[in-house]
Amino acid sequence: MTTNEHLFTFEATPVKFGPGAALDTGWELQRLGVKRVMVVADPQVIAREAGQPVLDSIRAAGIDVVTFTAIRVEPTLASLEAAAAAAQDAQPDGFVALGGGSTIDTAKVANLMVSNGGQIMDYVNPPVGGGQRPDRPLRPLLAIPTTSGSGSEATTVAILDLPDLGVKSGISHRLLRPTQAIVDPELSASAPASVTAAAGLDVVCHAIESYLSRPYHTRPRPAGPAERPPYQGSNPVADVWSAWAIERGGRFLRRAVLHAGDTEARGMMMLSATMAGVGFGSAGVHIPHACAYPVAGLRHEYRAPGYPQDHAFVPHGFSVIVTAPAAFRFTYQADPARHEHAAQLLTGRPVRGREALPDALRALMSEVGAPLSLREFGYREADLPALVEGALKQQRLLAVAPVTPTAADLKDILRAALDGA
Amino acid sequence: MTTNEHLFTFEATPVKFGPGAALDTGWELQRLGVKRVMVVADPQVIAREAGQPVLDSIRAAGIDVVTFTAIRVEPTLASLEAAAAAAQDAQPDGFVALGGGSTIDTAKVANLMVSNGGQIMDYVNPPVGGGQRPDRPLRPLLAIPTTSGSGSEATTVAILDLPDLGVKSGISHRLLRPTQAIVDPELSASAPASVTAAAGLDVVCHAIESYLSRPYHTRPRPAGPAERPPYQGSNPVADVWSAWAIERGGRFLRRAVLHAGDTEARGMMMLSATMAGVGFGSAGVHIPHACAYPVAGLRHEYRAPGYPQDHAFVPHGFSVIVTAPAAFRFTYQADPARHEHAAQLLTGRPVRGREALPDALRALMSEVGAPLSLREFGYREADLPALVEGALKQQRLLAVAPVTPTAADLKDILRAALDGA
Ligand SMILES: [Fe+2]
Ligand SMILES: [Fe+2]
Repeated sequence: MTTNEHLFTFEATPVKFGPGAALDTGWELQRLGVKRVMVVADPQVIAREAGQPVLDSIRAAGIDVVTFTAIRVEPTLASLEAAAAAAQDAQPDGFVALGGGSTIDTAKVANLMVSNGGQIMDYVNPPVGGGQRPDRPLRPLLAIPTTSGSGSEATTVAILDLPDLGVKSGISHRLLRPTQAIVDPELSASAPASVTAAAGLDVVCHAIESYLSRPYHTRPRPAGPAERPPYQGSNPVADVWSAWAIERGGRFLRRAVLHAGDTEARGMMMLSATMAGVGFGSAGVHIPHACAYPVAGLRHEYRAPGYPQDHAFVPHGFSVIVTAPAAFRFTYQADPARHEHAAQLLTGRPVRGREALPDALRALMSEVGAPLSLREFGYREADLPALVEGALKQQRLLAVAPVTPTAADLKDILRAALDGA
Repeated sequence: MTTNEHLFTFEATPVKFGPGAALDTGWELQRLGVKRVMVVADPQVIAREAGQPVLDSIRAAGIDVVTFTAIRVEPTLASLEAAAAAAQDAQPDGFVALGGGSTIDTAKVANLMVSNGGQIMDYVNPPVGGGQRPDRPLRPLLAIPTTSGSGSEATTVAILDLPDLGVKSGISHRLLRPTQAIVDPELSASAPASVTAAAGLDVVCHAIESYLSRPYHTRPRPAGPAERPPYQGSNPVADVWSAWAIERGGRFLRRAVLHAGDTEARGMMMLSATMAGVGFGSAGVHIPHACAYPVAGLRHEYRAPGYPQDHAFVPHGFSVIVTAPAAFRFTYQADPARHEHAAQLLTGRPVRGREALPDALRALMSEVGAPLSLREFGYREADLPALVEGALKQQRLLAVAPVTPTAADLKDILRAALDGA
């Protein structure tokens, strides 16, 4: 009797892509029957020229607009509760999320809460939260990313910070997937180079982690269809998007960072972000993302150029990519040919050996001006145990790693990353 | 001012894939809130062993079942009206389509009619029908293909024959797209070799036609988002699936036809059918499919081995592929490199020149035992004008051809196909 998984599932948010696509927002809401919408938006996006035409298109369609802009980068339970309360007051029959991943995640949770009631913690993944599944349909949500990073427009997940518990966790259910993504390269036009670099490295890491994740048929078969985890491991359909996004990242990220006016490169990075989201929404991310939680969350002294300078803050993409070379050196043993193929997709030429992928990543990181080591964030040898402990909390992610790392393995990976190896 | 199209859209049916996936039918219906389902099924599928476990899984989930099996291969207005009437009587709150493309199309139309009312002809594409758009949501529809051909589980289209008018037309709207596809290789296990060959050649042709369709940004910009046609032309997202399905077809179709027990090959052809459907649902098919309508519909004397022998009948895949070599020889001029790349994907090796793709197709057709010429269907030189006239009626398809064929061009293509050139 087979006891391994025999199925995989694949689901993609519908995408409308192109310069000016966001001007169809009003029409898309009309098509979805929305008469009163809550626009959850980055305040800078609303203030910038880019945001106004979106609001204008909604109003021109005769749709009532309530805006909510109290977004926290890396949402907390409190910031999400504020968004949910605002939705409860406003009672919109649809949502628009206009901003980065934090904004889209905030809209997902506000939508969940106004549609299904209860407390946010009820729905948070166990063991941190109650792991309750929504049983009522959510309202239509249009996701309009303004950075080319998170892929949240294509995923079923919302990430939240629980500062009191000292952990990050998430809410994950297929009903959280946005109804439609509108990917408009003009909305990312004014991003500073370092923001484009961090977002793009996040995309590349989503794609590589997914491509190298444990094959779905090596997981144990779930007890029933409801028990199938959202992160299923690599599969022939997710692989297509993961490979595509690695290749595009290798080809376009440098151009998007170094030449702000390169609209083709910027557009391709935005589309890659969404399509990598489609891929990792099915396959999953693992070691670098598990390490990124403590790297961004623990004591560090980093102030990223191009980001607000009022507090220390490691952009998500930098917190992810910094351990990627060491993580993929560690996982190489699971499938050398596949690691070499990922490196070949990234570099555009045939490369071989355990160091091929770490080398390709470090070259890309260095060319786009990313930090190369944990020391640049202020971490030292003495911080390793706390970083390991934080990474180990992400069992849901580590479960799809191609080799399950022990605490000692994670320490080796983080120690290598300390010095940029 | 730009007057060309600047956007493309992309939407994929969620897919669950794997041997035994169809046993989750009851669970999927439950998840979608369905309490009373109409199962629209090929009578042979219901009679065969493969169908019973699907019905059992629905009943085990406590869902009421009404079956409808009066499917016509190549549905007519009358056969669709019968299905719509049955749905009107039964008032199911969801549908399962279990069979080939005709079955899935029948379920789409029954669902449309019971959800939106009116007459079928109101919704048929103009100028044949009224071109009305549904304005109410359809009920959940699970599409479970049992052959690896049409890709209907992934498209927004239902094709119907209008024998009184002597044309084929369709109903096309995004709301017709099935809610979920369940692709289970075990369901195609008993297909005869010629059925697998015809279905697989249809898949390969969907993928190549889409890959070579006119790029979306060469179409004129539509007056508004509602006017954007379902067939948009090739675009970076559809291209990924088209290329993937061409490559898989080249690699697995021979194996699936020649070795009935090759479950990997059969599974890959079923997945390719769905994914090619995702691609052509966005990009579109053109010259071979436009010619296939009169080739299958006009006087011919073909009895396909492995199909019922009681009437002359050209399987759809054979009617499509027979003009493909000549069609792609004609379109080569539009983009030689892309045609060569399609041939390379199909053969797995670098090939060059105008004849590369026609040669690769004829080799595949011959190896899987497909007819190579229109003469094998009983057509003669004297039939060419009627075939040209029939193909010219498919303007909606010809609009996405990379070169728009004149009547004389179509005659040249069909004349070449007469002798298998
Ligand atoms: Fe990420
Ligand atoms: Fe077809």
